Amino acid sequence: MTTGTPAPFTAADYQARMDRAARSAADAGLAGVLVAPGPDLVWLTGYHVPADTERLTLLVLAAGQRPTLVVPTLEAPDAAKAAGADAMTLRDWTDGKNPYDVAAPLLEKSGRFGVSDNAWAMHLLGLQKTLPDTSYVSLTEALPMLRAVKDAAELERLAAAGAAADATYEEIKKVPFAGRKEIDLSRELADLLRRFGHEQVDFTLVCSGPNGANPHHAPGDRVIQDGDMIVLDFGGLKDGYGSDTSRTVHVGEPTAEEREVHDVVRAAQTAACDAVRPGIACQEVDRVARKVITDAGYGEYFIHRTGHGIGVTTHEPPYMIEGEEQELVPGMCFSVEPGIYLPGRFGVRIEDIVTVTGADGGGGKRLNATSRELAIVG
Amino acid sequence: MTTGTPAPFTAADYQARMDRAARSAADAGLAGVLVAPGPDLVWLTGYHVPADTERLTLLVLAAGQRPTLVVPTLEAPDAAKAAGADAMTLRDWTDGKNPYDVAAPLLEKSGRFGVSDNAWAMHLLGLQKTLPDTSYVSLTEALPMLRAVKDAAELERLAAAGAAADATYEEIKKVPFAGRKEIDLSRELADLLRRFGHEQVDFTLVCSGPNGANPHHAPGDRVIQDGDMIVLDFGGLKDGYGSDTSRTVHVGEPTAEEREVHDVVRAAQTAACDAVRPGIACQEVDRVARKVITDAGYGEYFIHRTGHGIGVTTHEPPYMIEGEEQELVPGMCFSVEPGIYLPGRFGVRIEDIVTVTGADGGGGKRLNATSRELAIVG
Repeated sequence: MTTGTPAPFTAADYQARMDRAARSAADAGLAGVLVAPGPDLVWLTGYHVPADTERLTLLVLAAGQRPTLVVPTLEAPDAAKAAGADAMTLRDWTDGKNPYDVAAPLLEKSGRFGVSDNAWAMHLLGLQKTLPDTSYVSLTEALPMLRAVKDAAELERLAAAGAAADATYEEIKKVPFAGRKEIDLSRELADLLRRFGHEQVDFTLVCSGPNGANPHHAPGDRVIQDGDMIVLDFGGLKDGYGSDTSRTVHVGEPTAEEREVHDVVRAAQTAACDAVRPGIACQEVDRVARKVITDAGYGEYFIHRTGHGIGVTTHEPPYMIEGEEQELVPGMCFSVEPGIYLPGRFGVRIEDIVTVTGADGGGGKRLNATSRELAIVG
Repeated sequence: MTTGTPAPFTAADYQARMDRAARSAADAGLAGVLVAPGPDLVWLTGYHVPADTERLTLLVLAAGQRPTLVVPTLEAPDAAKAAGADAMTLRDWTDGKNPYDVAAPLLEKSGRFGVSDNAWAMHLLGLQKTLPDTSYVSLTEALPMLRAVKDAAELERLAAAGAAADATYEEIKKVPFAGRKEIDLSRELADLLRRFGHEQVDFTLVCSGPNGANPHHAPGDRVIQDGDMIVLDFGGLKDGYGSDTSRTVHVGEPTAEEREVHDVVRAAQTAACDAVRPGIACQEVDRVARKVITDAGYGEYFIHRTGHGIGVTTHEPPYMIEGEEQELVPGMCFSVEPGIYLPGRFGVRIEDIVTVTGADGGGGKRLNATSRELAIVG
């Protein structure tokens, strides 16, 4: 599979994103947005910090104010090379100085700010201490949809990441499973994701036999047996955007019960994908999947939400979960991944990335195209 | 180089660490310690979370209370396998529930808690909202020395990690540098660290020519030239404990100025290592190194602190920095890494890990034994 490298995002792209974030914050009654190293910062500025350490790096966005990145002097040369650097001012601080004193003048003294979910508690406490009249709310609570609606260039990257995950699945189905350790197949999945263009592998789960009943089982030394159901769940980043796919395969012929459970999950996944359209609530996607599984008598064995958003991370809002009333909007991208987990026995999960399309009625479009039938492996 | 795998830490070891943390918190007037995924949690429980996500995982430690780990239901099976699992109670929460409601009953309603530096701001805000009368302080501020004093089993691991880094340096000196890209040598350093037993590589900096003037330069496509000074700085984790070593090498014969700058850094590094002994303040180590460099006329080009602690991370307290009055205690381990950075020209840094020894007068003992002379490479 060959795919070209997409045109890189420009300073103007990042400027537009930062402007949008500042405006959204103002609309939500916030004085601004405080962005920590990680996906928010990458999405807003293109800046990947050399390492996420105890040294404060913080982007301050506020309507009518030029974006300013507070950065350790040591890392200022790296920050200056970020694709979005021309759209912001750098304000560096040197070891031994109090970095919150550098950030404070950029913040409204009694403002309420949205802050990156994963900002370090230490830094939040430092700001709270330096500016005791400020208050804070997590970005997921305040502006959960900030990164959720993808533009055309982002959708192109997500589609390419999905295609690379599909190619990975087609290859892994061909290799021998029986007699090999989970960890060896896990490494092979990682190699395949890289071969098909991923620069970062986030997870390559191989959950065989009874391990399949743990949705997040870490692949280990268990040797795969003839007769095992195996949940494969793999993903990472390609050109900065995520893939996340699950398929369940079987070594040799499955039993009638194994087929039935797989059929139920597949029906649930299909129903949930078919339900996707602009205007329905996220929780509706979860309800549709859950109803199929509950009606089949397996409700208590579907022990996680139906899906999560994906973008510059493999795990972000919007969440397809009971209680999430956010309506779907064209451009949103998320996983649809119901499962059934029978403790001590086996598990089944089927997962595709789906994007919400607009116009012409609108609906859901899968970014994964491989078969969801139960594949028999050797 | 062959080194055996050290005996794993046991539930009793983790129990002792958790007891110590709870006692230290009580001594410091805190109601307890709240531990997030990452190095604190690994050190206290042996539990590596499958992924550090938006789902709350939080260890609650308080004197006279059994350690309790709040964990997503999905990840409870992983947590139950942690080496320290027998020393704590697991309290799981399911997708869709409010995890702070699960954590709250474990916390004193108006208590002040130490919290892991890297806990997510989102989670701190969730606790602050659920328990408005509680207050929080970062562990680095409240109990900076919690993990700083290493016991014999930890020192053994740190020494083995240092020896592996030394073996890496001895090997890399033999390979060709001129005509190759920084990034290729960086990958070779990473391969060597893994070959010598590191399970995790944190950084392998190769900063050639003018790039050497940026202490945290990310290795890139620059082709190394004859006549380049090259700062090598590499480290990661071996058996869970860190290495971090820098040496500066030169392609071909150095100029008199290059030799002089290297000599100054080497003298500063030697003086600082020689100054290490129980009872002196951390800032004294920094002052000793800085004085040598300042006296030689290069003070303005030494743009970072002299060192940082190392343990289950490659970057932690204690910091060798002006203003840090913490006294050195036998068992502390940290880097001593002065440098001179001449913008647009070149840089020099020399770094060893040093541990504070006790008894018999006490002093500093290097965990790296390779030559600190300027090595000539090809």
